[in-house]
Amino acid sequence: MSDIDRIRAAAARLKGHARRTPLLSSPFLDRIAGRRVWVKPECLQHTGSFKFRGGYAAVSALPDSVRARGVLAFSSGNHAQGVALAAAQHDVPSVIIMPSDAPALKIANTRALGAEVVLYDRAGGQSREDLGERLQAERNLTLIRPYDEPEVIAGQGTTGLEIAEDAAQLGIKRADVLVCCGGGGLTSGIALALEAEAPGLRARPCEPEEFDDTARSLASGTVQRNARTSGGLCDAIITPQPGDITFPIMQRLCGPGLAVSDDEALHAMALAWGRLKLVAEPGGAVALAAALFRADQIEGDDVIVTISGGNVDADVFQRALAAHGALT
Amino acid sequence: MSDIDRIRAAAARLKGHARRTPLLSSPFLDRIAGRRVWVKPECLQHTGSFKFRGGYAAVSALPDSVRARGVLAFSSGNHAQGVALAAAQHDVPSVIIMPSDAPALKIANTRALGAEVVLYDRAGGQSREDLGERLQAERNLTLIRPYDEPEVIAGQGTTGLEIAEDAAQLGIKRADVLVCCGGGGLTSGIALALEAEAPGLRARPCEPEEFDDTARSLASGTVQRNARTSGGLCDAIITPQPGDITFPIMQRLCGPGLAVSDDEALHAMALAWGRLKLVAEPGGAVALAAALFRADQIEGDDVIVTISGGNVDADVFQRALAAHGALT
Repeated sequence: MSDIDRIRAAAARLKGHARRTPLLSSPFLDRIAGRRVWVKPECLQHTGSFKFRGGYAAVSALPDSVRARGVLAFSSGNHAQGVALAAAQHDVPSVIIMPSDAPALKIANTRALGAEVVLYDRAGGQSREDLGERLQAERNLTLIRPYDEPEVIAGQGTTGLEIAEDAAQLGIKRADVLVCCGGGGLTSGIALALEAEAPGLRARPCEPEEFDDTARSLASGTVQRNARTSGGLCDAIITPQPGDITFPIMQRLCGPGLAVSDDEALHAMALAWGRLKLVAEPGGAVALAAALFRADQIEGDDVIVTISGGNVDADVFQRALAAHGALT
Repeated sequence: MSDIDRIRAAAARLKGHARRTPLLSSPFLDRIAGRRVWVKPECLQHTGSFKFRGGYAAVSALPDSVRARGVLAFSSGNHAQGVALAAAQHDVPSVIIMPSDAPALKIANTRALGAEVVLYDRAGGQSREDLGERLQAERNLTLIRPYDEPEVIAGQGTTGLEIAEDAAQLGIKRADVLVCCGGGGLTSGIALALEAEAPGLRARPCEPEEFDDTARSLASGTVQRNARTSGGLCDAIITPQPGDITFPIMQRLCGPGLAVSDDEALHAMALAWGRLKLVAEPGGAVALAAALFRADQIEGDDVIVTISGGNVDADVFQRALAAHGALT
């Protein structure tokens, strides 16, 4: 099956299950960016992020007998909740392996969505991969990878089909589509959808400074790693390096990456709050930050950005409002 | 023209101008309420509240030659911005009379949407009505009242048409529809739409405690006034008393009113933030608060609530998160 056929098939399975999100805008954001800014609010997706699309696409693609045995994911965040809810909606078990020092809220949310959460001791050197292999073998579970997995990429790509449809409706023929990028599942999925449906739109990955592995990989032509993968404010999108499957797709189809500071991500969160009435998490606000504060690196009269906000922390949000909540 | 025909005509004029908002839900909110909670997110409407619907309906209903002279509104909040944007979209002038001690952000936002803002000295005893009459006479402007105005009620009523349509799609035949209520424009508009399109759904006004003039008016059968109209956290929906046009409609069609505390409104704001990724202002969160914390006063397996958030203050929002942001 071709990539675009896989995305279209995922879209057909997601219909009536994933939310069909719109493109939103605000004259106040347009003024800051110096062009029209169109926001794809995946924070309104089930579980608060586009990860539900990929989780649902992957779970629904499994043969019935395989799916019935259950699915497995490694994640401390949005992917966990996307897979957990997708499994619950298919009435099959899900096991999520999370570090024991993950925030209590994320663990509680994942359990509340129906998953069995298995904790491992990250500090004590326990290997989550060993634990995962043991669980897979014992219980015959299917591992759902967060991005290096064709059905997950296809699920995230349904976001791109919707962007293409709405852009056509709005008469937008050429524009950069800025995508919050971790391992590249959403970015590569959107890029594939746009290639087929809206070739004048170009996906570009957006990352936090110091964790811009994808931008550096695209610039150099070879996969670059982050110096560290912990300690970043934008934790939702920090991965060691671009994926083995996602990177060649991004290399073929994407424009240059963009990187923003943590403070710019917080500022974008405050503007999404005040101007769009939407809640983004730091990693889900980097594309909006790039549209607003890296306008000189973007071309055209329009720019389209994704935002998401699955697991936003109250303290971090208050920090964003304290620093940037006065919108005048 | 009958009330429902006026609402349908407003819906036809609003098509492509107002956002068609969905019904959102979260399993976490359902658990608190003990029933399914469906949220109509009018915070995603242009200017952040349903007031844009009424403003646009009223401005678009004027004869061309009358509209061309411009419109006038008294408001320090959401109605001002709704009318300002609607006038700008019709390319006609708008004059908004606001108290000189209104928050700078509200004044700036209203100006940014294209309005001429005329300030009056509330403390110094200047009468805004006298000022308004003088401006109307001098410049031949048409006054757009915030709720006691049939076209405004019809515009807000388009919210009810959408609720009826989505409820039918979801198979919801009987449910209370909880509406954040100030002067009663949205509540009466929704009630009229439901009467025609979904007679099993019943609108109920929701207010802050101490400012529950509509609930008391409905209970007693005669119009009751609030003891005071300032100093409330839920300022967006505090009015002296129900409207002359809206009250008889609410009396004929609405169920009993519900009242919540300021702290419950803040709690509902925090839950909308964490569970729906939506930004509500205190007055726009009272219906959600009633669904969550007055469950014993509600009947049925489903409840539908409106939320809005046009002019939410960063300090108030931080207060909501500090008190209730830990969602566990």
